[in-house]
Amino acid sequence: MSHIYLLSPSSAVRDKAALRRGVKRLEAAGHQVEVDAHALNRDTRFAGTDTERLAAIKRAAASGADTVMTTRGGYGLSRLLPALPYKAIAKSIDKGTHWVGFSDFTAFSLAVMTKTRRVTWAGPAVVEDFGALDGVDEITDLCFDDLMTHMSEGTGWRIGKDDPTAFSAQGLTLWGGNLSMITSLVGTPYLPAVTRGALFIEDVAEAPYRIERMLTQLLHAGILANQRVIFLGAFNRFTASPQDRGYGLKAVIAWLRTHTKARVITGLPFGHVPTKVLLPVGQTVDVAATGREVLVLWSHDHTHAHHH
Amino acid sequence: MSHIYLLSPSSAVRDKAALRRGVKRLEAAGHQVEVDAHALNRDTRFAGTDTERLAAIKRAAASGADTVMTTRGGYGLSRLLPALPYKAIAKSIDKGTHWVGFSDFTAFSLAVMTKTRRVTWAGPAVVEDFGALDGVDEITDLCFDDLMTHMSEGTGWRIGKDDPTAFSAQGLTLWGGNLSMITSLVGTPYLPAVTRGALFIEDVAEAPYRIERMLTQLLHAGILANQRVIFLGAFNRFTASPQDRGYGLKAVIAWLRTHTKARVITGLPFGHVPTKVLLPVGQTVDVAATGREVLVLWSHDHTHAHHH
Repeated sequence: MSHIYLLSPSSAVRDKAALRRGVKRLEAAGHQVEVDAHALNRDTRFAGTDTERLAAIKRAAASGADTVMTTRGGYGLSRLLPALPYKAIAKSIDKGTHWVGFSDFTAFSLAVMTKTRRVTWAGPAVVEDFGALDGVDEITDLCFDDLMTHMSEGTGWRIGKDDPTAFSAQGLTLWGGNLSMITSLVGTPYLPAVTRGALFIEDVAEAPYRIERMLTQLLHAGILANQRVIFLGAFNRFTASPQDRGYGLKAVIAWLRTHTKARVITGLPFGHVPTKVLLPVGQTVDVAATGREVLVLWSHDHTHAHHH
Repeated sequence: MSHIYLLSPSSAVRDKAALRRGVKRLEAAGHQVEVDAHALNRDTRFAGTDTERLAAIKRAAASGADTVMTTRGGYGLSRLLPALPYKAIAKSIDKGTHWVGFSDFTAFSLAVMTKTRRVTWAGPAVVEDFGALDGVDEITDLCFDDLMTHMSEGTGWRIGKDDPTAFSAQGLTLWGGNLSMITSLVGTPYLPAVTRGALFIEDVAEAPYRIERMLTQLLHAGILANQRVIFLGAFNRFTASPQDRGYGLKAVIAWLRTHTKARVITGLPFGHVPTKVLLPVGQTVDVAATGREVLVLWSHDHTHAHHH
């Protein structure tokens, strides 16, 4: 049984029924779920004022929980980055707390990685995942259980047919998350300076040309040149435009491959989709592709982020 | 009579009738209009391949035209920035050519400002402005005429009722354009390092929270701190979301005012709207607000960009 602390650091929870379903499912799985007193707050589009959301993060850091998880993403962490309680967060991680979330949470993960060199987890949120009407995705659930039971050692998936095969790389720094959030941190003190990186990215409701524009920013900022591998998760829920005329995700991936020496691997089960593996952000990993599968392995020691 | 050279450095022209209307109107106004041979090219969503669009820019730079203007914006200049013919562009500007455009063209203007310290112009495009079904906006037309006849010395407009009044500042560097494009250059070698700036911004089809996220990036990157004035143009064509609950542009402006010492002035007639003043990007300007009006004045010498 794990102690899970839920908080809302970003957008206000609108689907309260989904939150209740998620809490019930986590409890049914044997976890002790503690919901932050302000998790259902609302201040316009945010889950409370900046001050209230910062206070919730402080309570979560002091909770002693095994896992701190967000109710949902949305928007709101960018504004809080200068004021995050980095020391308290680092201390909680050193004591064994896993911080888990995705989407807007990317800003939190990368800022914590940059400022404290600690590892947080890209993974599910309550409303979108555990509260889903048709149940939790099986793989998401299994990966989450692995983390809860300290069995999380790596992940693997079937890669795309045009992806590079038969290679391996050791000692890479795994990092990334939502591409819009990553690019929104370029040029700020909250983006880690990763060398020998394994960058994973996903995004939702962004047209292919916008994904390319963001990748172009990472290219021109010198960030792509420091990656050995780039993992592409889901890019979905965008509307094709009559302007596109065949300029889709395939064209973006082809463009990316001509502009980076990093191996571009597709099919990562992560993003705004039901199936999400959990990924330690800031963790040193080994990557190996054989045949049509890729494995990403991390050690048991996933407290400290390694980057130089 | 001016010699106007039209090219398509970004997205492919879909509305060819609007382009024809625009050309006819410019010719009717007494200009000699030269349309680049590849202005109607298409390669998926782009107006030709990268190589073809770069060649068009080179032809425009060598054209000896009084004005080089884009047919339209869209997307496509970001990819070209490392390969732009900066020397040829600078030479054309030194010989008196005005380069005019907006939206995606912001990437071109800011890269040219950074790499060559030359001034380009934020202003109309042919399809959206001169080709508009219901005619060219009168103010846009007058401002364009002023530039054509070398009478462009400044601009002024009625400011918002909550804006600061009764102030003046001399020797500021005017720069800016489309906010999405500006933020897409943060951290790259194509964003000018402006101190004592007068930053103007506009955007289209971006929700208020996204505008705030972009401003947050400029804040955290230290860019807002170097601005004395921020001019807000039009932010339009976005869809309000049920999540917003009162979080609109007013909330973004209020947030901006609490996070910068720069004077935030609204109402700039510029953006994805019919009325566009022409603004010299990189030019030294004086700014004066009196009562409900603001004036932005530049000297006759608008060849070289001044920034430190």
